[in-house]
Amino acid sequence: MLLCDIGNTSYHFLEGDESFKKSVNSFNPAVIEEKVYYISVNKKVNEQLAFLENWIDLEDYIDRASYYETMGIDRIVALEAIGNGIVIDAGSAVTVDVVRNGKFEGGFIVPGITAMQKSYENISPALAYSFNFDLELDIMPKNSKDAISYGYLGTLYHEVMSYGLDITLTGGDAQKFKKLFRDAKVEERLLFNAMKKIMKKANIC
Amino acid sequence: MLLCDIGNTSYHFLEGDESFKKSVNSFNPAVIEEKVYYISVNKKVNEQLAFLENWIDLEDYIDRASYYETMGIDRIVALEAIGNGIVIDAGSAVTVDVVRNGKFEGGFIVPGITAMQKSYENISPALAYSFNFDLELDIMPKNSKDAISYGYLGTLYHEVMSYGLDITLTGGDAQKFKKLFRDAKVEERLLFNAMKKIMKKANIC
Repeated sequence: MLLCDIGNTSYHFLEGDESFKKSVNSFNPAVIEEKVYYISVNKKVNEQLAFLENWIDLEDYIDRASYYETMGIDRIVALEAIGNGIVIDAGSAVTVDVVRNGKFEGGFIVPGITAMQKSYENISPALAYSFNFDLELDIMPKNSKDAISYGYLGTLYHEVMSYGLDITLTGGDAQKFKKLFRDAKVEERLLFNAMKKIMKKANIC
Repeated sequence: MLLCDIGNTSYHFLEGDESFKKSVNSFNPAVIEEKVYYISVNKKVNEQLAFLENWIDLEDYIDRASYYETMGIDRIVALEAIGNGIVIDAGSAVTVDVVRNGKFEGGFIVPGITAMQKSYENISPALAYSFNFDLELDIMPKNSKDAISYGYLGTLYHEVMSYGLDITLTGGDAQKFKKLFRDAKVEERLLFNAMKKIMKKANIC
């Protein structure tokens, strides 16, 4: 049995205690013969998986009624598991969601580190810097690298801190964002753990 | 006599009371025979202009000492003219700068509307929305369009409002941002007016 969280860029598998990734562009899901319990935000991949009987979509076991229609299933699964607090899932996009006492309050999305860096770079070579995660957040920047870092990280930081809730970081860039959100809990396997909870609740395994 | 503000994507001219734009990719500055007083953040263009005697760089008349080395001359010129408050220059990049009683406190940069929209779109077609400038800013979003709009506009809004200073909007997208910053003053010709001030002070005309 495998678990799989499918995002915009990769299949993220968990097999026993080992996790590994495959690119959505090159991996063929039909090569896997055992059962795979998955969630996916990737429409293209979903179309492929619909034909594979051993791939079981955990979305069918989730009540989406408390959330909004186009909300990514990964965000919903994470919030179901957290129950109270902020979940920051830092991948190719960074989603920030707030749940208070089991009630979803809303959330927002910023581009991930790579997309954001490219975005500055494409505007002008003068803005092509990598982000400074050790940025001072209480002082306004006085150099280009920090001006760009603050535009992305500083505004995000102040927004998130204004909610006054515990923060859980997950996703491929969780450790980088931990440098900003120093008191946050990093739970790299938040989604896999949440998927297991859903399976237990639904008596799937 | 012409004034010209050269950015990453265009030459922005002022002739008398008329302003017009030319693309940096296709316009040849050598076709202009009269005197042009300009500021430029575009290194490529600067290299061309260095050979043209009738193009006069106003940067030579500005004391950069209070600012940082790589800070765009357009930002400096705008702050010199404002003296106290926040200047948001919304072009292909959006610069936010704070000056208190003539003293530059710092500033930050976020990608402009087009760059930001592309950035979301490139991550996933599921994030390809145009921004909602009528977004409610005190409620967390519960739909994808607003989640993306809030990620860009909401975080920017809260950051800027936290400084408690008067806001001046300029740049090609000033009117769009005015929908967010309702009490802000839109001064589309802020840079041209600032350039005129510099010329007057330097007795150039």
